[in-house]
Amino acid sequence: MSALRISSLDAAQGFDFESRTAQNLEEASTMFVGILGFGTFGQFLAARLVKAGHRVIATSRRDYTREAAAMGVEFFADVDDFCEEHPEVVILSTAILSLEKVLAALPVQRLKRSTLFVDVLSVKEFPKQAMLRMLPADADILCTHPMFGPDSGQGSWSGLNFMYEVARLVPGDAARQQRMQNFIRFFAREGCTMVELGCEEHDRQAASTQFITHTVGRMLGEMKLEPTPIDTRGFQSLLSLVGNTNNDSFDLYYGLFMYNPNATQELERLEHAFDSVKRQLFRRLHAKLRDQLFPSPSAPRPEGTFLEAPAAPPAAPALEPGIGVLPRGSQREAELVSSRSRKRASLENGS
Amino acid sequence: MSALRISSLDAAQGFDFESRTAQNLEEASTMFVGILGFGTFGQFLAARLVKAGHRVIATSRRDYTREAAAMGVEFFADVDDFCEEHPEVVILSTAILSLEKVLAALPVQRLKRSTLFVDVLSVKEFPKQAMLRMLPADADILCTHPMFGPDSGQGSWSGLNFMYEVARLVPGDAARQQRMQNFIRFFAREGCTMVELGCEEHDRQAASTQFITHTVGRMLGEMKLEPTPIDTRGFQSLLSLVGNTNNDSFDLYYGLFMYNPNATQELERLEHAFDSVKRQLFRRLHAKLRDQLFPSPSAPRPEGTFLEAPAAPPAAPALEPGIGVLPRGSQREAELVSSRSRKRASLENGS
Repeated sequence: MSALRISSLDAAQGFDFESRTAQNLEEASTMFVGILGFGTFGQFLAARLVKAGHRVIATSRRDYTREAAAMGVEFFADVDDFCEEHPEVVILSTAILSLEKVLAALPVQRLKRSTLFVDVLSVKEFPKQAMLRMLPADADILCTHPMFGPDSGQGSWSGLNFMYEVARLVPGDAARQQRMQNFIRFFAREGCTMVELGCEEHDRQAASTQFITHTVGRMLGEMKLEPTPIDTRGFQSLLSLVGNTNNDSFDLYYGLFMYNPNATQELERLEHAFDSVKRQLFRRLHAKLRDQLFPSPSAPRPEGTFLEAPAAPPAAPALEPGIGVLPRGSQREAELVSSRSRKRASLENGS
Repeated sequence: MSALRISSLDAAQGFDFESRTAQNLEEASTMFVGILGFGTFGQFLAARLVKAGHRVIATSRRDYTREAAAMGVEFFADVDDFCEEHPEVVILSTAILSLEKVLAALPVQRLKRSTLFVDVLSVKEFPKQAMLRMLPADADILCTHPMFGPDSGQGSWSGLNFMYEVARLVPGDAARQQRMQNFIRFFAREGCTMVELGCEEHDRQAASTQFITHTVGRMLGEMKLEPTPIDTRGFQSLLSLVGNTNNDSFDLYYGLFMYNPNATQELERLEHAFDSVKRQLFRRLHAKLRDQLFPSPSAPRPEGTFLEAPAAPPAAPALEPGIGVLPRGSQREAELVSSRSRKRASLENGS
């Protein structure tokens, strides 16, 4: 593939300048990336970018000099200094709630006019509109949402969804075009499932998926659920959801709600769904009680169902409720079986 | 261990009759099991028992002759015929809602007096009391709850929780003791994590784990959530929970609610948790709105937070919102990257 490309470039020697430039850029695809907002998610992205060989600098409200140094990132406490380094790509990795404030305070005049701005926020239409409105017309703009984070993307990113929309690419410049592709390709190379999707459609889908997931995680988090010796697999997956969701800040959750116009409707749908489940339970309970209050033995009972049968007096002779005691020996033995197999099982599961 | 036992048995030759009988029974540990209620769960257990070399017969309200034959189980449409076969162990695998009715109608006089009854219901105190009250005093009684089913226990049972309580073991009979152990050991040998737990304690724990899991699954099921191209891992685990929960009948869910005295309280806790999450969202929303209605620019703002900052007019010059169009070539290229990596990712994940 690479050999083929080079020979076709040779054939076009001195003719197609743009595609040759693009070719050169692709081969030297090391990017110079500045990360604005070096919290958990910014650091998570930075570590992976550095590992892939890219040069990364960062700035943030708080001082992260030590964390940055540990992963090979140069940290600038001063945002002017950060901009004067002229990163080709600036990733906006702020909280949803502070994006507008950060953009308003950004000394864009110290960056190169051609800078590519990329946001990684969990809502999309709001940052897209804010960037188009607040960034200079010279800047390229890419809206992205990596649908994972430090928990789910701890290991490989293979198969994890990466959503993106090119919101602005100043036309007629092959280098900008190539840079856009290089940046997007970084996620493709990490194995992400690439999803090109409009920001509005993203917000519609995310409200009924990500926002609902966070809401359920927060609800169950409020309940302070604890693991027990009899957990089912389903409950274990809920517990891990609670853990992941509550590792994220409440600000993120509030941002998903406040800055996604579809969230209110989905919250209402969840509320109605809960009401509907309760209604089904209580209607049935009520029907059973009514049957006991107003028994109608002459009414034909639907064939083959015991469901509404009143708790009849037992037909079997009433027996004394003697709860047998397990003889000492067998109790011991049962415990032995129990602890032995628990040990075996836990070894086999690595849990 | 086995060698040690045999030699100690030799030493006690002709003396300790009971322990010798027990030894013989353990070696020939093939059980003769009758399953009463041959629905999804009964069939699930039967298949695994047959595979482990045990003889299994079954009876049910509906005719399951064909399903039974396919897995090497003899099916009796008539419950009297079933009882006259004299299975050593009778597993009660009915719906929670029909247990009392089934026990009341069971011709126990046709079974051996020494029969071991085992229930596998998802609530425990209710069947324990019903069996102690309605079964003859001669019968042994074991209460169990395999914390898995045809979905989660499709493959290996290794590490899946199996809860049990010996509710009655008629003392002074080594054969009964051995039979009880053999039955419990079947689950230990399949790799289950064995949890010996009182039925009351089971119901307390299950209300805040299994019942809550089913409630969340039912709620989300009501919402008719659909997979999207941008699903997070957390949302995918919720979707699979919905699938598993809604594979179970509503009767099972209603049984978990109706026959577990702790369920109402847990349902209320879930309701309060939901209210609390909504309250936190709306309180914050209200605070933001109030700030806009009654701005107090002189009030000191807490240092280092942008959270409550009103959406200030942008400091950057207002720019025309020109959404750039991606040149045709690079759009294509991006799509190629996209579909290629999606294919790769899906191969690597086997999904």
